[in-house]
Amino acid sequence: MLKPLDWQSAQGVLRVLDQRQLPARSEWLDCDSPESVSEAIHCMAVRGAPAIGIAGAWGAVLAARAAAGETDWRACFQSALQNLGRARPTAVNLAWALGRMRGLADTASDSQALAEACEVEAARIEREDLAANQRIGELGARLLPKGSRVLTHCNTGALATGGHGTALGIIRSAWSQGLLAGVYATETRPWLQGSRLTAWELSQEGIAATLLVDSAAASLMGAGEIDAVVIGADRITRRGDVANKIGSYMLAVCARAHEIPFIVAAPGSTVDSALLKGSDIPIENRSADEIWWAAGLDKPMAGITTHNPAFDITPAELVTAIVTEEGIASPMNGQGMALLERSDSGSGHS
Amino acid sequence: MLKPLDWQSAQGVLRVLDQRQLPARSEWLDCDSPESVSEAIHCMAVRGAPAIGIAGAWGAVLAARAAAGETDWRACFQSALQNLGRARPTAVNLAWALGRMRGLADTASDSQALAEACEVEAARIEREDLAANQRIGELGARLLPKGSRVLTHCNTGALATGGHGTALGIIRSAWSQGLLAGVYATETRPWLQGSRLTAWELSQEGIAATLLVDSAAASLMGAGEIDAVVIGADRITRRGDVANKIGSYMLAVCARAHEIPFIVAAPGSTVDSALLKGSDIPIENRSADEIWWAAGLDKPMAGITTHNPAFDITPAELVTAIVTEEGIASPMNGQGMALLERSDSGSGHS
Repeated sequence: MLKPLDWQSAQGVLRVLDQRQLPARSEWLDCDSPESVSEAIHCMAVRGAPAIGIAGAWGAVLAARAAAGETDWRACFQSALQNLGRARPTAVNLAWALGRMRGLADTASDSQALAEACEVEAARIEREDLAANQRIGELGARLLPKGSRVLTHCNTGALATGGHGTALGIIRSAWSQGLLAGVYATETRPWLQGSRLTAWELSQEGIAATLLVDSAAASLMGAGEIDAVVIGADRITRRGDVANKIGSYMLAVCARAHEIPFIVAAPGSTVDSALLKGSDIPIENRSADEIWWAAGLDKPMAGITTHNPAFDITPAELVTAIVTEEGIASPMNGQGMALLERSDSGSGHS
Repeated sequence: MLKPLDWQSAQGVLRVLDQRQLPARSEWLDCDSPESVSEAIHCMAVRGAPAIGIAGAWGAVLAARAAAGETDWRACFQSALQNLGRARPTAVNLAWALGRMRGLADTASDSQALAEACEVEAARIEREDLAANQRIGELGARLLPKGSRVLTHCNTGALATGGHGTALGIIRSAWSQGLLAGVYATETRPWLQGSRLTAWELSQEGIAATLLVDSAAASLMGAGEIDAVVIGADRITRRGDVANKIGSYMLAVCARAHEIPFIVAAPGSTVDSALLKGSDIPIENRSADEIWWAAGLDKPMAGITTHNPAFDITPAELVTAIVTEEGIASPMNGQGMALLERSDSGSGHS
């Protein structure tokens, strides 16, 4: 199974599939310290909210091992976790995973015990994410009538998660059930997660797909070619506002104008119950270079500034459904993240 | 003044600024035959609906010169014009300019007279386009309140026209009148006319601007940062449906959702009065390579197709105003291209 991360316990190395090199090359980076994990997250060798969370958890294992033997091992560990948490600001999954790791320091009797507990917990986080994605895939596929043509944005597949994927997990599950008549993938400027990563995953799995530039999605909707938009999320507030890849809001506005369902898929760890409004989510601004290189320039053009936010906020009012492993919410009805359909419905449990 | 075309009569050469090389390099192509002009249009060394029309007109001069001395010079000329007309299908300006040239063959007494008449006519078309753009700039600037922040798409500047520009002509005029608080330019995938050409023109003129990826426009609108969208057109129907660069429809849908005026600027030659509905406009589909190169691939990925239309159609209902040199129409009110404000209003004429 395709995975973006490969933990090598004996060597104390987190191997990271360098997603900056895909699809031209499959290269792995060896990260042997929390700092190198942090850098792999920051430079987007690993990206995707759930995968960032899992990488952070493995980074915490390396932090615990590095702290071993230090007299102030708890302080060393906590400090390393704080640094890891700063690698990228928008996705809440990183903070969430590090929060789970942080608590282990309180109960560990010594640094050796902490390192062992961290390793168990990181493996659990990764395993839980894969299971959550498979459940999201099953639940989300129920929202797609047979013959659906689905548009997705960015990469939300195995590469962005512990495996299977969130929005792309729904597409995988729906495809395997024969529900899909077509998959459309936006290229997703500026980082091209769509043309580089989503196209690659779909190609590897033999799922027929059509690639388009981001701005062509609206006219496809206008032509009646899209039955549902399915995307991931980097953070979701209590009321159901969704931070996701830049361009998601554009798709949501256009989907509404064409009365197309707008479906968001994410593990429960993406819901930040501390926040009510999307405007409270910090939005990462990235380098101008991400835009200019495509124009053939290695530095910004004189007199021209850039506006390069990595994410935007789609308000709850435009979100038809949010699918987590716990169930399905429908923020557009004003009930926030209250689950309309729980994950266990239809499986015989009450 | 910045111009995309430079006619050298004595040499019988149309020099074409190769816009594929900008902004990294300013290189000129020497076109000495109608075939080489056709190729320069097809490969987008010259692009932009009005500039394509003007290039076609100069191509017709070369066709007339090439026909000189042939016994069937009229047939040679008409055949060359037919080939020129196939270079790109969507913009009506090419067909319009060639139509003006075609008529000259009926009245010319011999091939020498035809070549001379063509040269006079091509120069007139170029001159008229510049004058039209300056008038469009004046008229369009009246639609922008002082302090406006304007978003534009693709390149509609001097490079796309006989000079000054259409939508960018309005921006130039409004900027020189001190009306603009900001200019936002989309990069315009897949061909990057925004980051390569519009940014370059604005940089050359010292007009402060901000560049963004296409899909970031919607969230800027949502943040209240855009007061008007101003774009060009490749063909406009009687009812005011507008064919323009892919992504224009996306901007129109988002502008409507945010109650932002959506203004289209084009010379009268862009209005195709033979057509009522936008769905009758042929839309050019371009090569998959235009998408894949950015992902680092020199050929399409196995199993993935592309959808790469060069243009989309914005229906009249979403178009606040269309500014031509003849006046301003407001298609969204259902009156098609009927002029609400004629070009001569406010200038003392009745």
